[in-house]
Amino acid sequence: MKVEDIQGFFAKRDQLDMADYLELDYYLECVGDIEACLAHFCSEQSTAQWSRVGVDEDFRHVYGAKVIDWKVVEELPELSYPVEQAAEGKVHACRVTIAHPHGNFGPKIPNLLTAVCGEGTYFTPGVPLVKLLDISFPDSYLAEFEGPKFGIEGIREMLGAYDRPIFFGVVKPNIGLQPELFAEIAYQSWLGGLDIAKDDEMLADVEWSTLKKRSELLGRARVRAEELTGDKKIYLANITDEVGNLIEQHDVAVTNGANALLVNAMPVGLSAVRMLRRHTKVPLIGHFPFIASFSRLEKYGIHSRVITKLQRLAGFDAIIMPGFGNRMMTPEQEVLENIEECLNDMGDLKRSLPVPGGSDSAATLENVYRKVGSVDFGFVPGRGIFGHPMGPKAGASSIRQAWKAIEKGLPLDTYAEAHPELKAMLEK
Amino acid sequence: MKVEDIQGFFAKRDQLDMADYLELDYYLECVGDIEACLAHFCSEQSTAQWSRVGVDEDFRHVYGAKVIDWKVVEELPELSYPVEQAAEGKVHACRVTIAHPHGNFGPKIPNLLTAVCGEGTYFTPGVPLVKLLDISFPDSYLAEFEGPKFGIEGIREMLGAYDRPIFFGVVKPNIGLQPELFAEIAYQSWLGGLDIAKDDEMLADVEWSTLKKRSELLGRARVRAEELTGDKKIYLANITDEVGNLIEQHDVAVTNGANALLVNAMPVGLSAVRMLRRHTKVPLIGHFPFIASFSRLEKYGIHSRVITKLQRLAGFDAIIMPGFGNRMMTPEQEVLENIEECLNDMGDLKRSLPVPGGSDSAATLENVYRKVGSVDFGFVPGRGIFGHPMGPKAGASSIRQAWKAIEKGLPLDTYAEAHPELKAMLEK
Repeated sequence: MKVEDIQGFFAKRDQLDMADYLELDYYLECVGDIEACLAHFCSEQSTAQWSRVGVDEDFRHVYGAKVIDWKVVEELPELSYPVEQAAEGKVHACRVTIAHPHGNFGPKIPNLLTAVCGEGTYFTPGVPLVKLLDISFPDSYLAEFEGPKFGIEGIREMLGAYDRPIFFGVVKPNIGLQPELFAEIAYQSWLGGLDIAKDDEMLADVEWSTLKKRSELLGRARVRAEELTGDKKIYLANITDEVGNLIEQHDVAVTNGANALLVNAMPVGLSAVRMLRRHTKVPLIGHFPFIASFSRLEKYGIHSRVITKLQRLAGFDAIIMPGFGNRMMTPEQEVLENIEECLNDMGDLKRSLPVPGGSDSAATLENVYRKVGSVDFGFVPGRGIFGHPMGPKAGASSIRQAWKAIEKGLPLDTYAEAHPELKAMLEK
Repeated sequence: MKVEDIQGFFAKRDQLDMADYLELDYYLECVGDIEACLAHFCSEQSTAQWSRVGVDEDFRHVYGAKVIDWKVVEELPELSYPVEQAAEGKVHACRVTIAHPHGNFGPKIPNLLTAVCGEGTYFTPGVPLVKLLDISFPDSYLAEFEGPKFGIEGIREMLGAYDRPIFFGVVKPNIGLQPELFAEIAYQSWLGGLDIAKDDEMLADVEWSTLKKRSELLGRARVRAEELTGDKKIYLANITDEVGNLIEQHDVAVTNGANALLVNAMPVGLSAVRMLRRHTKVPLIGHFPFIASFSRLEKYGIHSRVITKLQRLAGFDAIIMPGFGNRMMTPEQEVLENIEECLNDMGDLKRSLPVPGGSDSAATLENVYRKVGSVDFGFVPGRGIFGHPMGPKAGASSIRQAWKAIEKGLPLDTYAEAHPELKAMLEK
């Protein structure tokens, strides 16, 4: 890029109509002249050649991505992570805010991803390391998305569960159990006080446990549990499948009595979730396989909050995400940011229920509640319920007992003295 | 995990019926006892709780992922990339081969991704860094996939182009150009000798250049170019869009005269590509946005060859991928591996045309040809054609002249003396 061309990719925020732009925050490690790197970075993700040969025109005014803010956060002797064939030299670690004109692609998730984390983003000369940290959308852009159909309030109404967390449980053994036995275990957990018994994210429609059979059995077991307890229950069926089968799988599961559906967001694709959102009769719950492959490292990839926002845009009513503690190897700040992205104002979109999880049990509930800071979350143990030494009904009871103790302001240990299910779990 | 449970996740290859298993190669950085880490790694990606409480059963024989080979490749004082909240201690960098029973999920791309690069893979205690290096499929599993509908041979037949590379060009300016002007530029490039004029991966269906209008104009221009040159031509329309629109976009574009379709694989989702493959009347060409976000670093994420294999499984007839040289920051070995994955035997699946690209021009063609080692590739300049100082027709001619020189075994400079289009490009 010629020196005189660089400034065409810089602008002042107050000179732009920000309703026409997304704001993108990136961490970049630049080698070479910083402004040249940043101009290249904008060029590559928008109008890479902004005029025809021999024609006096400039598409950058309307179509160019533009740097509206940047600063060097650190000077480094080398890249934070080695990249073979990267440019060599002193490394300028930068934070940069880019105004990207959304008219280049419109309110479409695949085209949005292509623009903000596509070839341009990761193949800019002089910028070997990039992390997309955040995206902000103008309200007019958000208004083009449907977002959650039910949201937190919709799920609470289905369950008649207010002023407390929503209690999920992942039925275990997750893989290999025959549907009849699976249904019996889920039934027990509902009797013990679970709101939502769910399929593991790895269990979908397989020969040894077809979705049809499982949803029939679980649908019936759910109704029995509702009759016996007088409480509303949810069977959360995992319909993660080839995109061409999703609508049919929805129909099979819902007809049989599944009243919420689990979809693994990235493996199926966020856009397919948006398609399903338009069809669904029940809440859609997202799960997080694949996301860590590009979000774990601090200085490369895509921050998980970006994907949380996109999951909400796509229409998930609840979002299961890596939770607190060392088990999930996710910084506490990042977990909190992902929870916030479910709950923050976002145009007119409903709120999604955040479900931070990872090896939870009655022993971890209070910690999660304190960290979230409100009751607007889902709690999702697996072995913490279905590995309970007294069985899954006791496992579910132990969770409800732990919540009672929290409500009463009593130490868990004290409350456990008169509650053997809780006691057994704490001792485990 | 108890010590006596660890060996249930290890097996010898010759004790397994490998037709029931995928083979997964991972690079792992383990902290703590290696065999315990590896057993956890298998458990988390398959049957995490392999029996009900109080029942004498073991689902691992059938449903457990099993280590069939492993070795320590390096002992490290710390993780190659820091991970907050990771386990601390000496790091054992390992290569491990896992036999994963595909009956756990079946021949479905989203469920495959969930199993091999999902929560289990990235959230195993003691294994903070993971790279999925490769997947091998038994033929019986591959037989469940359709793969490319046309393949290399189909594309060659459409063009009548044999014994040479296929010449693509990305029409530029890529973003902002009105459809009429866009069509004129593509037309010129076809006259100059291009086989395939293509939309940029960022240009899809937008208000200022609708797919309908663009495909009408380009479809007509293509027919005119075919009449004038006597050669068959392809307009490669980018139908990357929300999944719910893909079939309709296919129909609009193809009806109007687009005779191949570009889809950004990961942004749309590989499974949606498989859905489109069943419907399509024309070749499908994949593009690579998003992939670098999880494939660039040597020791974390997912190797790009895995995604190339999955793109072929999903049904892409050609796969555009980062090519040779420092511009694309991809090790030469990795580029070669991705090319091989398009061409290698893979059950009965057709071969996909590999299209390694990145800032190419007449000056880089010979190098790409030598490195690929055959004519079975696509060559895809952008500015190397549409930024040619004499215009896009000359730009396309310069590519064909460069190929003529290679065929004749003449140095480019020598051949350029009598070919001004080539000469102008080399001087640029």
